[in-house]
Amino acid sequence: MIAIDWGTSSLRGARLGVNGQVLESREFPRGILTVPPGQFEPVFHELFGDWMQAEGALCLISGMAGSRQGWQEAPYCPCPAGFAELGQHLLWLQPNRIALVPGLSFMNADTLHTPDVMRGEEVQIFGALQWTRRDSATLVLPGTHSKWVQVHSGRVTQFQTFMTGEVYALLSQHSILGKTLDLNGAFDEAVFLQGVDQSQQAGNVLHHLFAVRTLGLFERLSAAQLPSYLSGLLIGEELRQQRTPHPNSPAAQDAVIVIGSAALNQRYTLALQHLRIPCQSRGAEATWAGLFALASSC
Amino acid sequence: MIAIDWGTSSLRGARLGVNGQVLESREFPRGILTVPPGQFEPVFHELFGDWMQAEGALCLISGMAGSRQGWQEAPYCPCPAGFAELGQHLLWLQPNRIALVPGLSFMNADTLHTPDVMRGEEVQIFGALQWTRRDSATLVLPGTHSKWVQVHSGRVTQFQTFMTGEVYALLSQHSILGKTLDLNGAFDEAVFLQGVDQSQQAGNVLHHLFAVRTLGLFERLSAAQLPSYLSGLLIGEELRQQRTPHPNSPAAQDAVIVIGSAALNQRYTLALQHLRIPCQSRGAEATWAGLFALASSC
Repeated sequence: MIAIDWGTSSLRGARLGVNGQVLESREFPRGILTVPPGQFEPVFHELFGDWMQAEGALCLISGMAGSRQGWQEAPYCPCPAGFAELGQHLLWLQPNRIALVPGLSFMNADTLHTPDVMRGEEVQIFGALQWTRRDSATLVLPGTHSKWVQVHSGRVTQFQTFMTGEVYALLSQHSILGKTLDLNGAFDEAVFLQGVDQSQQAGNVLHHLFAVRTLGLFERLSAAQLPSYLSGLLIGEELRQQRTPHPNSPAAQDAVIVIGSAALNQRYTLALQHLRIPCQSRGAEATWAGLFALASSC
Repeated sequence: MIAIDWGTSSLRGARLGVNGQVLESREFPRGILTVPPGQFEPVFHELFGDWMQAEGALCLISGMAGSRQGWQEAPYCPCPAGFAELGQHLLWLQPNRIALVPGLSFMNADTLHTPDVMRGEEVQIFGALQWTRRDSATLVLPGTHSKWVQVHSGRVTQFQTFMTGEVYALLSQHSILGKTLDLNGAFDEAVFLQGVDQSQQAGNVLHHLFAVRTLGLFERLSAAQLPSYLSGLLIGEELRQQRTPHPNSPAAQDAVIVIGSAALNQRYTLALQHLRIPCQSRGAEATWAGLFALASSC
């Protein structure tokens, strides 16, 4: 079985054995933004064609390749949605050979029914739940667009996106704050937590952000420390509302499952523990577990 | 008397008559970012030298020209500070002829004593108070970095900066949201207020921002409407904490004074009225009134 995670900026693939073990993996800087319309199939065959020659090869592709700007649009599967719904909504590009996994959508009644969407994270969620053997949980998938997800009886019941990673990149690279901070500074845990504390104070994030400038101006933090402070402020803001889990949430008392890169898992785990929210973390290889399980159920 | 407002991105000057009336005004795209170190004096004389030839010409310069990156650093005057403190802290570049007006600083005890600063707005504040004949008020000066200011008995007692304008520019030009919105769309009042309403809902701004993407994706708002929605979300976020004025604030029951450009005054007035916060607005020419009053007291 061949598992592909084709995102906005990168393309990863793994060849999995009969028990789901990774036999071989590849990664390319060929996110969907680098692929011209109509060129997805040639690019796929160029990079993974050799794997597809194996007899009975089955390939599932998750991520933005299933978006309107991708290979072909695989319509969102509305929440609540579980593993079964995901399998039923696979978009087959070649019958029983290559399929796109649909993303999930959710209409949030708490915020004037604004829609929310994910593509790729749904596979990681179901992969992580298999490992933890839980069928109800709160999960966070940190990244450019972080997702906070509620799973109940094996189905995603609701989720919310936070633009934390993208706002961090914009502010540190393109804003006035970028003029005084040194992005090469090593991660400073104490300063990061100072930012998390600040984000929990009175006021709001549009105000707190300005402290990145003034703490530099008044020489209370060095240029190398400022990125850690900014990161703490933004991740702290994302976590602010997570401090009061919905009382009806079946997972309110259980550890939050964090699924991300090692660097982001470290930051989120630090911030969550600092705010006394129990958590456990998992690597992004949850993608392979999720796609393998999905392929096994085809 | 010659009044100069030398900001980050623009340079404005006015020649004022004996009663403070504007006799002549000039504006140049020569903000401090365009002026190399050591070149402030030549640029000033090139653009305003003719005005300075008048006998007894007195010139006061407010704004970022008094910052570390400007003509010369005029140290911040700490709050509480009134008109008198501002006059005492003028930094004379040429005795009795050319002076830089200092900015204000404030250490916020409510947010772990983070410092806040302004340069240029202090002059507008005192200018607007002269017009309104109030010595206590809440003022907002919308812009790249909006300022919310409390004045008590003629002195600025506290203020807070919000990076609203800069975050709007970053998100609409450099983020994924920028890919789907049309910045040439006309301002849409109803959609703007929809954004304001959204910002007051549960959740936080890092989440609400993602709705700019999904409302476009689900075709509930057009590309031309999305900038108005984004603007409403961010201005609404800035106003969120202003809904509950500090009970000890002498100005809690009075109209908030809005001082900004016509376009921003329109948006802030709309949002404030929508949230049932009484307000009145003033143009940015408050700068001239403030500098004139300061010159008169020299």
